[in-house]
Amino acid sequence: MIVYLNGEYVDESEAKVSIDDRGFLFADGVYEVAHVYGGTLFEWRRHRDRLRHSLEVVRIRGVDLDELDRAADTLLEHFRAEMARRNEPADGSLYVEVTRGAHPRAHLFPDPPVRPTVVMWIRPVEPIPAELVERGVKVITVPDDRWSKVWIKTVGLLSNVLAKQYAHDRGAFEAIYVRDGIVTECTSANLFIVQQGTLRTAPVSNYILPGVTREVVLEIAQEEGLPVNLTPFGVDEVYTADEVFLTGTLTEVLPITQVDDVRIGTRAGPVALRLRRLLHERAGVLKRSST
Amino acid sequence: MIVYLNGEYVDESEAKVSIDDRGFLFADGVYEVAHVYGGTLFEWRRHRDRLRHSLEVVRIRGVDLDELDRAADTLLEHFRAEMARRNEPADGSLYVEVTRGAHPRAHLFPDPPVRPTVVMWIRPVEPIPAELVERGVKVITVPDDRWSKVWIKTVGLLSNVLAKQYAHDRGAFEAIYVRDGIVTECTSANLFIVQQGTLRTAPVSNYILPGVTREVVLEIAQEEGLPVNLTPFGVDEVYTADEVFLTGTLTEVLPITQVDDVRIGTRAGPVALRLRRLLHERAGVLKRSST
Repeated sequence: MIVYLNGEYVDESEAKVSIDDRGFLFADGVYEVAHVYGGTLFEWRRHRDRLRHSLEVVRIRGVDLDELDRAADTLLEHFRAEMARRNEPADGSLYVEVTRGAHPRAHLFPDPPVRPTVVMWIRPVEPIPAELVERGVKVITVPDDRWSKVWIKTVGLLSNVLAKQYAHDRGAFEAIYVRDGIVTECTSANLFIVQQGTLRTAPVSNYILPGVTREVVLEIAQEEGLPVNLTPFGVDEVYTADEVFLTGTLTEVLPITQVDDVRIGTRAGPVALRLRRLLHERAGVLKRSST
Repeated sequence: MIVYLNGEYVDESEAKVSIDDRGFLFADGVYEVAHVYGGTLFEWRRHRDRLRHSLEVVRIRGVDLDELDRAADTLLEHFRAEMARRNEPADGSLYVEVTRGAHPRAHLFPDPPVRPTVVMWIRPVEPIPAELVERGVKVITVPDDRWSKVWIKTVGLLSNVLAKQYAHDRGAFEAIYVRDGIVTECTSANLFIVQQGTLRTAPVSNYILPGVTREVVLEIAQEEGLPVNLTPFGVDEVYTADEVFLTGTLTEVLPITQVDDVRIGTRAGPVALRLRRLLHERAGVLKRSST
């Protein structure tokens, strides 16, 4: 794999950062993950805008976003060539991380500022198996113990890691964060429910990361005339929903058929499957998905 | 500077970790900072125990703490020799970080586990200027926006970085975190107040990182017969306290003479200065400090 690192393209084995990097020492960095469908970035503009916003709010300056666009193009070219060589579809995920740079450890920002560390790569992703989509996944609920600025897409993800592993250890695909009785989101996806034909998901607040796929699904719902309700809801409304599903850059739209010990239907719900199909259409995925 | 990195001793310029390191991608790592006084580690046993506990709670396995002890000894030897060569006191800080290791990015723990990344170094520290100690520092209060497991010493410190920078930008030395009206701690130090001769600091809870220096100061207080009250207190009690001070591994005991716009005395308080002197005695600091 080729990695873009501070203006250079290097092999993954050479792609290293200093032990003084503030991403490594303080989680003092932000990131994005974008989906590559058939060799093309999906919704890059939104990811790019969100990255710019993340950089602004954590006050990391001196990043040339046009240079990131060029890096993405170069990596996409490599990726398409590599996947063609392997005779595999050019489906992948682009990861980009920007940290405040490397400087001897101290909490305060380096003064004068140092050059931010910028790293980007594309790795292949396997499509989610059709039978998993059709059957739906199990999720569990966990207390939302994260900080109160999860709307900033930082690399400080230890809570997410621990909660997702906790879910995995209990046979679940994801964990739903619950804060003061209110459902916020999952560890790496947003959560939607369907109640009598109405789509619900948590409103934008300090306590959710407004997912790009969440936004796209809300747009699709509007185009399709599906009613949407963005008021907060609790765990009981999840348990009694007609459908529950996840949205995420790599998760796309993934039906949920069990939340804790409560079954939600017996198979993937029709609204989730329809939104998944429409998302795929928008991403230009034609015959690659069986749903 | 010599850096211990996964069993090797390398020059700082060579001390790099993979862009796949989970410390860099997820803040999936824990750390300690210990004070080196005159070439000797202070309270290493407590730091080591806390590190072991941090590793346990985030489920990072396979770290040989005895190997860390040997690395610390080797680095101390280098450090003493280097500082002798410079004809400077061997006062420094030892930093050790352990992450879950390097693996292509996914939230779930690598399965099978990969080798944790272990890095350690010692850098010189300047003593806090005597006039700063004597005059006392200004601090400000900020909302405590951190996650609810700050008792785990993880490298997910972006809130701390942003709050400390926010304080610095306003001419303050530190920021006091306030959660629901209750004072928790500062961004890289614990907070104490003195009320009519009684020492108060926040009790151990999910919302403070129990500092080694906090513990040592409480022990010293007990030895000295100083009354201690470990019940929670609010900002008003800080504003009206007779004395306010910080404790921390590198901060030691540092008097505070202003909190937000409120003056606390006109110079360093006697209890803080006495505890600072007793801490220095315990650390074997004799003529090196002027207080």
